[in-house]
Amino acid sequence: MPELRQDPACGEWIVISTERGLRPELFRSGEKPGLRARHCPACPFCEGNESETLPEVWALRSGTPPNGPGWRLRVVPNKFAALVPRGDFRRHSELNFFRKAEGVGYHEVIIETPRHDLDLGTMPEADVEAVVRAYRARHAELRLDPRVEAVIIFRNHGKSAGTSVDHAHSQLIATPVVPNLVRERYEAAVSYYDDTGRVLLADILEKELEMGSRVVDENDAFAAFQPFAPRQPFETWIVPRSMAPSFASITDAQCRSLAKILRRTLYRLYTGLNDPDYNLVIHTASLRDENQPYYAWHLQVLPHITTPAGFEIGSGMYISTMLPEQTAAYMRKIEVAEAPS
Amino acid sequence: MPELRQDPACGEWIVISTERGLRPELFRSGEKPGLRARHCPACPFCEGNESETLPEVWALRSGTPPNGPGWRLRVVPNKFAALVPRGDFRRHSELNFFRKAEGVGYHEVIIETPRHDLDLGTMPEADVEAVVRAYRARHAELRLDPRVEAVIIFRNHGKSAGTSVDHAHSQLIATPVVPNLVRERYEAAVSYYDDTGRVLLADILEKELEMGSRVVDENDAFAAFQPFAPRQPFETWIVPRSMAPSFASITDAQCRSLAKILRRTLYRLYTGLNDPDYNLVIHTASLRDENQPYYAWHLQVLPHITTPAGFEIGSGMYISTMLPEQTAAYMRKIEVAEAPS
Repeated sequence: MPELRQDPACGEWIVISTERGLRPELFRSGEKPGLRARHCPACPFCEGNESETLPEVWALRSGTPPNGPGWRLRVVPNKFAALVPRGDFRRHSELNFFRKAEGVGYHEVIIETPRHDLDLGTMPEADVEAVVRAYRARHAELRLDPRVEAVIIFRNHGKSAGTSVDHAHSQLIATPVVPNLVRERYEAAVSYYDDTGRVLLADILEKELEMGSRVVDENDAFAAFQPFAPRQPFETWIVPRSMAPSFASITDAQCRSLAKILRRTLYRLYTGLNDPDYNLVIHTASLRDENQPYYAWHLQVLPHITTPAGFEIGSGMYISTMLPEQTAAYMRKIEVAEAPS
Repeated sequence: MPELRQDPACGEWIVISTERGLRPELFRSGEKPGLRARHCPACPFCEGNESETLPEVWALRSGTPPNGPGWRLRVVPNKFAALVPRGDFRRHSELNFFRKAEGVGYHEVIIETPRHDLDLGTMPEADVEAVVRAYRARHAELRLDPRVEAVIIFRNHGKSAGTSVDHAHSQLIATPVVPNLVRERYEAAVSYYDDTGRVLLADILEKELEMGSRVVDENDAFAAFQPFAPRQPFETWIVPRSMAPSFASITDAQCRSLAKILRRTLYRLYTGLNDPDYNLVIHTASLRDENQPYYAWHLQVLPHITTPAGFEIGSGMYISTMLPEQTAAYMRKIEVAEAPS
């Protein structure tokens, strides 16, 4: 019998239809990931090809000049930017009905490593920590622009997840409006706070730790679990124990712990499902809502296992084909190799 | 300069980033659709292979017995049903916190033609009308089940749109809860009605016809236009001139006119973009909201041109790469062949 479950963080119902008797290992992608060369001459993100990107806006370098080799991490504007940091943000209307505005904002690429053969799940832990710190640094800088209302940090891994370049990278888009989904998740948290006086995500985490069956990993500062109502098999949330509305407030110690658990989570996906395509996104309060107590930032990893289709588009409900209790048990059993150094 | 636009029907902002100077014809899929055989022995939806599906629940037959050859259209339960019409619908909770329920409902497949070589955009108009009437007939029957709260009628065309069988078919899922997105679209309409005393979609249609630049087609009872804030290039809405909350109320004359404009719209996509993958969905009020004046049913066709990725998942905002005024002009120019009979 299929089951309906509601995601408490946004009210979305999902269907878990397990009639086909699938086992978690069947979700492995067809091919084992091949070994890649350390350097790819045609890759715009590889060391030595810095002229293929726009000039860097931020980098980790030990004394080397910008836009040449000798770096650990680079941040550059996206060549095909969805939003651009030019001019005023003004709102207009057509026929006094349709609302539009200038596409002002930022769209940056965080090139996570000079090496073509590494990814977040397989690189040294210190490098993952550098990526998390780069997220924080860019968030800290872009928030100063008064035109920015929200910052979305995300990662597309693999073709079906929307990547065009397969060298390890994240992206960041800073928007001059509060996106719909950011508003909805925030409002669900406000409404829960109004009802209970508590932070919604804190209660979700408490219940997940109490049940335990969907927990994949824990450390001093974070827990990783597969949510009660996942949109895709193996969807995983990484949630801080000490909650705050904005990712901007992440501490140095939290950066280190997040890097640890994120690397371990992505390593498990890489090994357990043969390097599946996935999206990663950091949910954080919009800038004006950061000083309210309602929201709690967290990170979601959403593998691309099934294709959302007409039903999902028409209803917002997702159909998932495995219980998260089963997929979490599978992920827990995967032994995580020590991080290379 | 990119542009932000807000979809008035749901409040979602989209980005139109046209910096790359694309032309509409560049969105053509790589290959022209090949001619297919009229019959495919391995296809479970072809005439003669009726034993490959579950027994039909509805069909257009001229006197032939069920579940054998000699039909024009068949409706069968989905073999891999997301929801099933068994037992009571009961709500439960875990830890008095997580909400779940039995997956009660319907999941049906509408096999639109016995022929393997036809599709909605290329079949005779009378056959498209039979499909629209089948939608209405199934909606009329399933709404009688008191466990059903909403009926989602949709169509997945092509692999990236989630099809597993390439024989022409639609699907219908009847849910025992009101899906999130159905609720949100409804509430946007209620709020607009509260503010203005008017039906939101009626005002959208009026403005679209007044501007004209995004209109693709019109007939006596419907208009087809590409919306002000499309999520994908070539997104198209088909909207009735005489509005009603529920698709259930569609008249015989409207069925004929909808078939005409739908065939023409899909023919234009088929010809202009080389048979692109797309999803089609009918937005209609949930059953309990049908007798309120706020909502207006309509149909959306959403081609799969770009891949929604981390930004879309994290923000709800879509990035589209062409202005709808440009894509609509392109679609208007395509000459629509007379329907075969």
